[in-house]
Amino acid sequence: MNLNQKYQHRMSSKRIKLVRADQTPLSNKEVLISQKKHKFLFGCGAFDSIPLMNGEFQGEDQKFMEERFEKWLALFNAATMPFYWGGFEPERGKPKTKPMMKAVEWLKENGVEVKGHPLCWHTNTAPWLLDLSNEEILKVQLERIHRDVTDFKGKIDMWDVINEVVIMPIFDKYDNGITRICKDKGRIGLIREVFAAAKEANPNAILLLNDFNTSISYEILIDGCLEAGIPIDVIGIQSHQHQGYWGLEKTHEVLERYSHFGLPIHFTENTLISGSLMPPEIEDLNDFQVEEWPTTPEGEERQAREVVQMYQTLFEHPSVEAITTWNIVDGKWLKAPAGFLRKDNSSKPAYDELLKLIKQEWWTTKNLVTDAEGYINVSGFKGDYEVITGDCKGQFTLDRKDETETIIIL
Amino acid sequence: MNLNQKYQHRMSSKRIKLVRADQTPLSNKEVLISQKKHKFLFGCGAFDSIPLMNGEFQGEDQKFMEERFEKWLALFNAATMPFYWGGFEPERGKPKTKPMMKAVEWLKENGVEVKGHPLCWHTNTAPWLLDLSNEEILKVQLERIHRDVTDFKGKIDMWDVINEVVIMPIFDKYDNGITRICKDKGRIGLIREVFAAAKEANPNAILLLNDFNTSISYEILIDGCLEAGIPIDVIGIQSHQHQGYWGLEKTHEVLERYSHFGLPIHFTENTLISGSLMPPEIEDLNDFQVEEWPTTPEGEERQAREVVQMYQTLFEHPSVEAITTWNIVDGKWLKAPAGFLRKDNSSKPAYDELLKLIKQEWWTTKNLVTDAEGYINVSGFKGDYEVITGDCKGQFTLDRKDETETIIIL
Repeated sequence: MNLNQKYQHRMSSKRIKLVRADQTPLSNKEVLISQKKHKFLFGCGAFDSIPLMNGEFQGEDQKFMEERFEKWLALFNAATMPFYWGGFEPERGKPKTKPMMKAVEWLKENGVEVKGHPLCWHTNTAPWLLDLSNEEILKVQLERIHRDVTDFKGKIDMWDVINEVVIMPIFDKYDNGITRICKDKGRIGLIREVFAAAKEANPNAILLLNDFNTSISYEILIDGCLEAGIPIDVIGIQSHQHQGYWGLEKTHEVLERYSHFGLPIHFTENTLISGSLMPPEIEDLNDFQVEEWPTTPEGEERQAREVVQMYQTLFEHPSVEAITTWNIVDGKWLKAPAGFLRKDNSSKPAYDELLKLIKQEWWTTKNLVTDAEGYINVSGFKGDYEVITGDCKGQFTLDRKDETETIIIL
Repeated sequence: MNLNQKYQHRMSSKRIKLVRADQTPLSNKEVLISQKKHKFLFGCGAFDSIPLMNGEFQGEDQKFMEERFEKWLALFNAATMPFYWGGFEPERGKPKTKPMMKAVEWLKENGVEVKGHPLCWHTNTAPWLLDLSNEEILKVQLERIHRDVTDFKGKIDMWDVINEVVIMPIFDKYDNGITRICKDKGRIGLIREVFAAAKEANPNAILLLNDFNTSISYEILIDGCLEAGIPIDVIGIQSHQHQGYWGLEKTHEVLERYSHFGLPIHFTENTLISGSLMPPEIEDLNDFQVEEWPTTPEGEERQAREVVQMYQTLFEHPSVEAITTWNIVDGKWLKAPAGFLRKDNSSKPAYDELLKLIKQEWWTTKNLVTDAEGYINVSGFKGDYEVITGDCKGQFTLDRKDETETIIIL
């Protein structure tokens, strides 16, 4: 099968014995195998879950946001949550832990994996750092990591530890505490400190280095970190394509260069535009400030094609373990029409096409019949499954190959 | 004094007592203080000393080359010698150690510091590496370092250990053994191995990392090496300005970014052109292949101005400890008119102007009178000196400040 070959690394198989509560085998029974969740992380920003879960929307607005999140949950299984220091702790000593916790717990209840983003970054960092000495800035940065990683342990076990370090010490748009300490300690010196703090606070967390820079500078930075023994679990690559789709060539090239390290890769911030593109001469995406940036019918068709090709390309590559769409809806970061939903919550073609890929083409549902001893052989996309017969159900997971398992059907 | 302020880090002072062989002080005597050598390394390639010292030139040719080296020795105090593996050991197991040794010994006798360049590089490497497995290539690369560093210990105690690592694993002009192992081990992994081998063979040698890349990629590479504990003594920066003089702004910017590491900086390969410039659209200097590349009168005037400003700028910066002109004569690498001599050995303005800087403006010669107890207070540019009175002489060195020394005048 072509599909099986192309996505072999996404699939697994298992021999399963189905038994009743009294351990007697469920012999010669028709059963339905139904996938419930992907192992692969199809992620999206879920920032709006904080106001939604904390009663900040009223009446129609709340309904509207609930509808939006219904569509969110139908497509995605992983959320990126905003831990920008400036927003999370605008006043020193008063972190917004509680409202964040409410949202995170709601996402977890809905089967969503949650990642915190980011623990250290020069942009949107706490403005009150500017009043401190470099020694104090580093101290409170590490304390902040200890506090937040500890507070959310078991709920958030995946962190963008530090963001955009390639430019961090030479960032010169405005003074900020993090650029100051990065200049002081050097890039890798700072990465070492923040990763050590995160690791100490949650030894089992998955820790990412994240950058938009995909040049050899980032490769060399990763090489340096790994040679210095820094416990990077995952390489994070941003892919904000406001100036146009990378295309197959660049995507393959980036995958080849970054898979070389033998670490998993997450595409942490993916955007593809459904309107006119940002002019190519603009270097920093943040410099493109517009009143409005409309989505267009032709743009939406193009976006759908590009989204499908990008997701297919990344899903095909064995090193990639996550793709995160930056915003589900248009008009968020830089007002870009980069959502899969329009502002009125209606689905763009990209949403429909991606839903087909994730929940149909890459999704396993099948009818099987147990043998005389109650066995079935299941193969399908890695993830969590239900097996159903009549009113009875059992659960299993497809992950590593060639396991055998006995499941009690209740 | 303006000169003293600008070059304070290049100067020192010492209180010296002059005595006769019988230890009686040389009281109230006029003495001449005469600088013999700079501490700062004014370097140049001296590749032609190998054929010259090994009888490869005859008659007029030999005389012509001797004249060239007279001018070389009048200006420079440091030589870069070619250890390109392909040329040094074209046939495996037959390194050209003997002819190299003759030239190195002759340079040392003439008071010249010698640096070997380079021990590992993807260009001009041994072609026979292509027949070996990656494991074997690394093994012979490290053996080669052990052998050559050991053979020349005490004569060459300064090495460009590895060259142009930023592009090493992505160099794709042709297959070569070094790119293969750099891909395999990673940039910093390979740097670690070659530096360890050089350090083991000669623990007192000064070991350089050298690159033409002055982007943040090289900064991050250095950061990574230092964080990984690799014993880099000096940061080597190439400055082949075939496409035009860097100018003050770029030079200052590079100095600021690279002095940040707190290591000495050597400008290892400096070229400034005295003809028409290489077109700006050419990315790799090696791609500009011309029949002839003439020096011009206007070009020579421009070159002289730029050489003077570049040397002044680098000599002013406390981190810089060496500047090496790549070729003394025109028509060598890429046929560029980058020499300080024309092909007929006649001096260009750059030669005359630089000689004035190095041997007059930055050079200390003065008459002093000893006091009743034989003391003089000497201050001047750091380096080696003679003190002369009548037919008698003594030697001293100006380096660290505020030392006191007794010198016997014989």
